[in-house]
Amino acid sequence: MKVEFWFEFASTYSYLSAMRLPAIAKRRGIEIAWCPFLLGPIFASQGLSSSPFNIYPIKGQYMWRDVERRANGHGLGFRQPEPFPQNGLLAARVATAAPPGAAQVRFCQAVFEAEFALGCDISDRQTIETCARDAGLAPDVMDRATSDDVKQRLRQTTEYAQKRGIFGAPSFTVGDELFWGDDRLEEALDWAAAHG
Amino acid sequence: MKVEFWFEFASTYSYLSAMRLPAIAKRRGIEIAWCPFLLGPIFASQGLSSSPFNIYPIKGQYMWRDVERRANGHGLGFRQPEPFPQNGLLAARVATAAPPGAAQVRFCQAVFEAEFALGCDISDRQTIETCARDAGLAPDVMDRATSDDVKQRLRQTTEYAQKRGIFGAPSFTVGDELFWGDDRLEEALDWAAAHG
Repeated sequence: MKVEFWFEFASTYSYLSAMRLPAIAKRRGIEIAWCPFLLGPIFASQGLSSSPFNIYPIKGQYMWRDVERRANGHGLGFRQPEPFPQNGLLAARVATAAPPGAAQVRFCQAVFEAEFALGCDISDRQTIETCARDAGLAPDVMDRATSDDVKQRLRQTTEYAQKRGIFGAPSFTVGDELFWGDDRLEEALDWAAAHG
Repeated sequence: MKVEFWFEFASTYSYLSAMRLPAIAKRRGIEIAWCPFLLGPIFASQGLSSSPFNIYPIKGQYMWRDVERRANGHGLGFRQPEPFPQNGLLAARVATAAPPGAAQVRFCQAVFEAEFALGCDISDRQTIETCARDAGLAPDVMDRATSDDVKQRLRQTTEYAQKRGIFGAPSFTVGDELFWGDDRLEEALDWAAAHG
């Protein structure tokens, strides 16, 4: 059974999953659909004006240590981006415009690394262009990313995510089952394997 | 290195950890201190008037399914108690009054099972008395539980938890490191083993 991987570029735990997922899924022979979406509108509809990690600072303080610890455990670099959360709108549009496949995955990983390993500002068009080029996406992807069609598709994906009960990132869906959090990645793949 | 297990009787994920922890810790030879505390005052100091699972219903809806799925995976019964969250004050006072040891652990597990496997109301004195007796706690534990000394100790434990940066349950502390969530149980024990 296919696993849908829902991620938001501003999300720290999405970074961990995006970097870990391809190797694990390949080893287990499970197909992954990469679904970029926006958490902002979903947070807003719950009355949250920013990341819960900013609204509840004691939780945020824990999150930074937790993500650093887990990144270390996976051999991934980690630094806290400034500001947090970053504006991932352009990156999400490019990921939406990119055709599903290896170059799309490389682009997403490049953005997450730029943001959370190198500390780049991912709202910067130059940064995203570099990621797209290095990933091997077609040169016109930057223009298509800001077309009405792609903007509309990203909005629809976000609305669909919310209808599926998604409220945070990363999330994984397998049929009707929803799994939330980087720490549910393995469980989601197990579910897909067991209900193949 | 010793692991401190911080739990709140009203907490669904604390139930999962309380049932899993003793066998895993014994197998690995790691000593656990059971630390009952109250989440209510900690939530209140963050401006939360109830469980975040009630304040953010979309998150609550997910939690019920997630806990059920994980309880099934561990061979544990699960039902949603009414009301949620339950008032765990008396149970926390009895667990505080009980001397550390096997009977204290049995009492805590009995309360969690009554609440989340059987659907009992744990604010009911009779229910807690039965759990205490079945666990083999001394008969005077119910009286000592409501003494000023025990009330004060539970308040102090809760204040100390908050000072340690604890904002949810279950949490695990190993020296200066904090781990939050049933899904960090193994990681906390790993940390204790690696930094013995």
